Amino acid sequence: MKARKIDSVKSEIRVVGVDDGFFIPRTRGLCDVIGVVFRGGHWLDGVMRTRIEIDGLDATEKIADMITCSPHYGQLRVIMLDGVTFAGFNVVDTDKLLEITSLPVIAVTRKQPDFKDIRKALENLPCAEKRWKAIRNAARIVKVFPRSGEEAIFMQVTGVEIDVAEKIVRQTATRSNVPEALRVAHLIASGLTSPLQE
Amino acid sequence: MKARKIDSVKSEIRVVGVDDGFFIPRTRGLCDVIGVVFRGGHWLDGVMRTRIEIDGLDATEKIADMITCSPHYGQLRVIMLDGVTFAGFNVVDTDKLLEITSLPVIAVTRKQPDFKDIRKALENLPCAEKRWKAIRNAARIVKVFPRSGEEAIFMQVTGVEIDVAEKIVRQTATRSNVPEALRVAHLIASGLTSPLQE
Repeated sequence: MKARKIDSVKSEIRVVGVDDGFFIPRTRGLCDVIGVVFRGGHWLDGVMRTRIEIDGLDATEKIADMITCSPHYGQLRVIMLDGVTFAGFNVVDTDKLLEITSLPVIAVTRKQPDFKDIRKALENLPCAEKRWKAIRNAARIVKVFPRSGEEAIFMQVTGVEIDVAEKIVRQTATRSNVPEALRVAHLIASGLTSPLQE
Repeated sequence: MKARKIDSVKSEIRVVGVDDGFFIPRTRGLCDVIGVVFRGGHWLDGVMRTRIEIDGLDATEKIADMITCSPHYGQLRVIMLDGVTFAGFNVVDTDKLLEITSLPVIAVTRKQPDFKDIRKALENLPCAEKRWKAIRNAARIVKVFPRSGEEAIFMQVTGVEIDVAEKIVRQTATRSNVPEALRVAHLIASGLTSPLQE
């Protein structure tokens, strides 16, 4: 598996940040997933959307399709995910996402994932082992301090060196300790799909 | 009709920019309308959504509800619209929008509206006079150059002095000649509702 090479982290590096919208846990149905393209940490370049099944197994393919079919694909250098579980326990296999898109993947969380809790929750779902494998695939967790004096975040990196990933996270976390593409993806996904508005 | 008073245009003035998504002209159905809250021209603070009827008569009420029911309402100082016609000829009555929300309204277009063409198009729709009245209500058109060396845009201003409106447009057009809240509302609305993704 080879990602497009990142020779230097340009200030206007194109990243897509991916987050999911509101859904009712443990129900059947679809959940919106939003991708937001940023040039560096300042300029919003585009928005894309897909839908995945709550607790389903289609997150990796659907997110890969959303990205590769987008007009921004050719410009993108990195995929950033809000963790690796979407719409409940629809797990993104970051190795597979890298393989399909040829883009490195940085999964970012504000809290250190508790694998014991996750493993337990998976027990009630079909294909528990497949999901667990994807979660474990997402590489080791690295603590990063994107902004001095602010809280740390945690990242799992696939397809690029840790120090390059750290640099990208720092460069793009311009307004908070979370990369701007992910902060805005969260705002859009939750603003569009809040239960009050449906 | 009184708008909340704007004593000075602060650099972080809260504005909501409103634009509509994709729809098939001259059909029946609903069209997404997106509101994007910006602090000045740099910081995206939130996203909201409503749905209006294609060529309907509900744009004013639906957009007013979307804004007044949002958690951002208390912070907002100005509403910016991408023109006054949404989802075809669902016209926003800016006087009424000001009356319901107590917020001044700045409708911005890249091109000078051609009232002769609009009037003609309205003839085929029910309540043509009501729509026409709302369009004419939206005040005289003022040409503004938000950024030196770039193209002019046109604004129609309700509930605030022209020079204050000009200042707000200049302050918030940080990335192009269109205020950032409107530029991003357009990107979100069209990214979410592109015909390819439905």
